Amino acid sequence: MNYDSQNPFARILRGELPSIRVYEDDATIAIMDIMPQSEGHVLILPKEPAVEIFELSVESAAACIRTTHKVATAVKAALNPPGVMIAQFNGSAAGQTVPHVHFHVIPRHANEPLRPHATVPAETAHLRAIAERIIAALPADAG
Amino acid sequence: MNYDSQNPFARILRGELPSIRVYEDDATIAIMDIMPQSEGHVLILPKEPAVEIFELSVESAAACIRTTHKVATAVKAALNPPGVMIAQFNGSAAGQTVPHVHFHVIPRHANEPLRPHATVPAETAHLRAIAERIIAALPADAG
Repeated sequence: MNYDSQNPFARILRGELPSIRVYEDDATIAIMDIMPQSEGHVLILPKEPAVEIFELSVESAAACIRTTHKVATAVKAALNPPGVMIAQFNGSAAGQTVPHVHFHVIPRHANEPLRPHATVPAETAHLRAIAERIIAALPADAG
Repeated sequence: MNYDSQNPFARILRGELPSIRVYEDDATIAIMDIMPQSEGHVLILPKEPAVEIFELSVESAAACIRTTHKVATAVKAALNPPGVMIAQFNGSAAGQTVPHVHFHVIPRHANEPLRPHATVPAETAHLRAIAERIIAALPADAG
């Protein structure tokens, strides 16, 4: 599948669009979802350009899950949601809205339906406050 | 979290309960979900015992995503669904039904809602036929 180098995540990775980062390493970044489906919704992106996971190298997929594991553990520790969903959507039929591979870490609460995907922006100051709590809960060697 | 060694996935890993396997390596197995949310729904389990991803080693998480990447690519090639969702649920509030970490690979079709999780069993012969198509689409070095 053709990769659109002007997609929002490519522009975030190049620093052309702002983001609230909670983690970065050689292969991945983790940023706050600006239209979160629940409080503490974080996105993990590989730096490698790929639209869907089928086109992503296995090495980048492994790097993504390492970062996702770190971030999910920090989200659990920082916000203590009863549930945490990890999801990665390929194709608009699966709910993908930005054509660059990304993993979602989404806190879940019993009997609280998720907000619809990518619809309601959160306040930046609030996202930054949540991000700081997650960053504080990351392992000391992270990033 | 205490790991229940009698949970169904632990029993499948020990060979005490049947399963339809599409893939196995040193660290993981991939099996057909017997109550699929859509046709081609596969589960990837680490052999390491862990209830939630927070308790799983990073090595096992990476092994899971390598297998998930292989299986998702084979599901896409074999069944050609327009979308493929990868999901991993931690805690009943997030939709986890078996207390052993697992990743879902779920084909998605536009405007076709998922069947509810873990409710309607599929016919074994039908699952075996789907499994054979997925196995045929796995890379030659897999397993």
